Amino acid sequence: MNSTFATILEIVGTLAFAISGIRLASAKRFDWFGAYAVGLVTAIGGGTTRDLLLNATPFWMINGSYLAVTAIALVFVAVFRRYLVHLENTFFIFDTIGLALFVVVGVQKTIMFGFPYWVAIVMGTITGSVGSIIRDILINEEPLLFRKDIYALACVAGGLVFWLSEALGMDNIITQSLCGCSVIIVRLLAVKYHWSLPSLKVDDNER
Amino acid sequence: MNSTFATILEIVGTLAFAISGIRLASAKRFDWFGAYAVGLVTAIGGGTTRDLLLNATPFWMINGSYLAVTAIALVFVAVFRRYLVHLENTFFIFDTIGLALFVVVGVQKTIMFGFPYWVAIVMGTITGSVGSIIRDILINEEPLLFRKDIYALACVAGGLVFWLSEALGMDNIITQSLCGCSVIIVRLLAVKYHWSLPSLKVDDNER
Amino acid sequence: MNSTFATILEIVGTLAFAISGIRLASAKRFDWFGAYAVGLVTAIGGGTTRDLLLNATPFWMINGSYLAVTAIALVFVAVFRRYLVHLENTFFIFDTIGLALFVVVGVQKTIMFGFPYWVAIVMGTITGSVGSIIRDILINEEPLLFRKDIYALACVAGGLVFWLSEALGMDNIITQSLCGCSVIIVRLLAVKYHWSLPSLKVDDNER
Repeated sequence: MNSTFATILEIVGTLAFAISGIRLASAKRFDWFGAYAVGLVTAIGGGTTRDLLLNATPFWMINGSYLAVTAIALVFVAVFRRYLVHLENTFFIFDTIGLALFVVVGVQKTIMFGFPYWVAIVMGTITGSVGSIIRDILINEEPLLFRKDIYALACVAGGLVFWLSEALGMDNIITQSLCGCSVIIVRLLAVKYHWSLPSLKVDDNER
Repeated sequence: MNSTFATILEIVGTLAFAISGIRLASAKRFDWFGAYAVGLVTAIGGGTTRDLLLNATPFWMINGSYLAVTAIALVFVAVFRRYLVHLENTFFIFDTIGLALFVVVGVQKTIMFGFPYWVAIVMGTITGSVGSIIRDILINEEPLLFRKDIYALACVAGGLVFWLSEALGMDNIITQSLCGCSVIIVRLLAVKYHWSLPSLKVDDNER
Repeated sequence: MNSTFATILEIVGTLAFAISGIRLASAKRFDWFGAYAVGLVTAIGGGTTRDLLLNATPFWMINGSYLAVTAIALVFVAVFRRYLVHLENTFFIFDTIGLALFVVVGVQKTIMFGFPYWVAIVMGTITGSVGSIIRDILINEEPLLFRKDIYALACVAGGLVFWLSEALGMDNIITQSLCGCSVIIVRLLAVKYHWSLPSLKVDDNER
């Protein structure tokens, strides 16, 4: 992937993830600092978990732009708070692009660290989804991820496409693009056609 | 410990822990993917926390069978969901065996990494109990562990027995067996005789 | 900083943090073990998160006194539980001293590991505040930190003073003292004059 283009996508994704955290924290009456912290964790939580598991230095400790982008997201939400509701579709697109890029980065980095593909698929999913899970824990809600649309499954699909594409000997740039596009397509289709996984409906009371 | 036998016990334990997570997630109407994720975290959360603290590669990133066993647990719960209530006692036995093995593995691995015994006892307890704590956080309940029976204290007891046994110059296989058995015995006695720790009953309102 | 004096301050801080965790856990009817675990995590959670991010061996795995001090805190709360309410001011002072010391240690250690100052400021804040966040997650409350006073901002202020002081070529002992004092002063002023950050008050319903 062209590196300038990748950087732009990464900023877009970080911005979208941070804004989602900041908005949910604000709805819970967190103060500015709390909203910033929740936004930051939403944006960097997945990649940080991945880097700890890979025993890599967390990516945001090497490059300060993630903290800066989250600050921009905070200012953005504070200034445009009355108009944000009308931007839902734009946020959704940004969020989906961010998700796709996070999955690509997660899979790629794990392969680079010498782990097999099934680990890379798990890491792509972790990179894309753990940020939102920590966000929901911090605002004391049940993780939305576990009940709404097939967000995390889009990450798994992207990881599988990456694997398949490399197995077919595709060029790395094509592999990354196919992976990212499949995350986006699966997510868009899932939302458009209201795809969702069934729940297990177990009748018991273990607790 | 005979390595085939240890592997069988480890699968039994992973299965029992994963089933407990999947059932609680299902009761909260999580979808299949959410139930799988909660089951997986319940099964591998303790060992992963231990490995991060020890700076070891998380065990499930080296051996894919934990992810596969969790998938089997998911299918099992989905197929037999009507009959699971009648299997409570079986689950309890499996869960206790799993706990015992997790403690043995946690203590053993920490010693192997050159840490003193008191760290190993903490790590045995973390390996056995952090999975359930993360499970309860994900389903947004207060960790059951902190209020019910003496689950975690059984881990500490097992760790102390390991220490004592090694101090008495016992063979490693005997030490591991004694450690595991004491976890099982303490847990069984605690449940049978309704042992529980008192709460502190502080009268204040700090918050 | 004189090392005996620093050790005394560190014990005071650990004690104060552990007591705050034990009291909140007791108010939730956690048993003794649960209260100990929550107290321990409150005291060591921030430093452990920092050490995992820095890829350092968690500090409490090298020195057993943190586990012992938490045990003393548990006995203290159990024995003096009727009188604790009258000690609020003392606890507040201890807690603030602990916070200051945790920030100094966090910033100093991060610099020692070769990271730039902005990472050190984040790590000082993490060292001082993540323990309370994990405590609030364990007792299933929304993190108080995100809504009450400017606790975390006092950590950031201390980190900035550390940076400024080093940039001005100050001696390390002076730098550490200035950093710690500014944490204490900002926190005391914030509580005395009821400083608080505004919340963002976004009107939307994203979820």
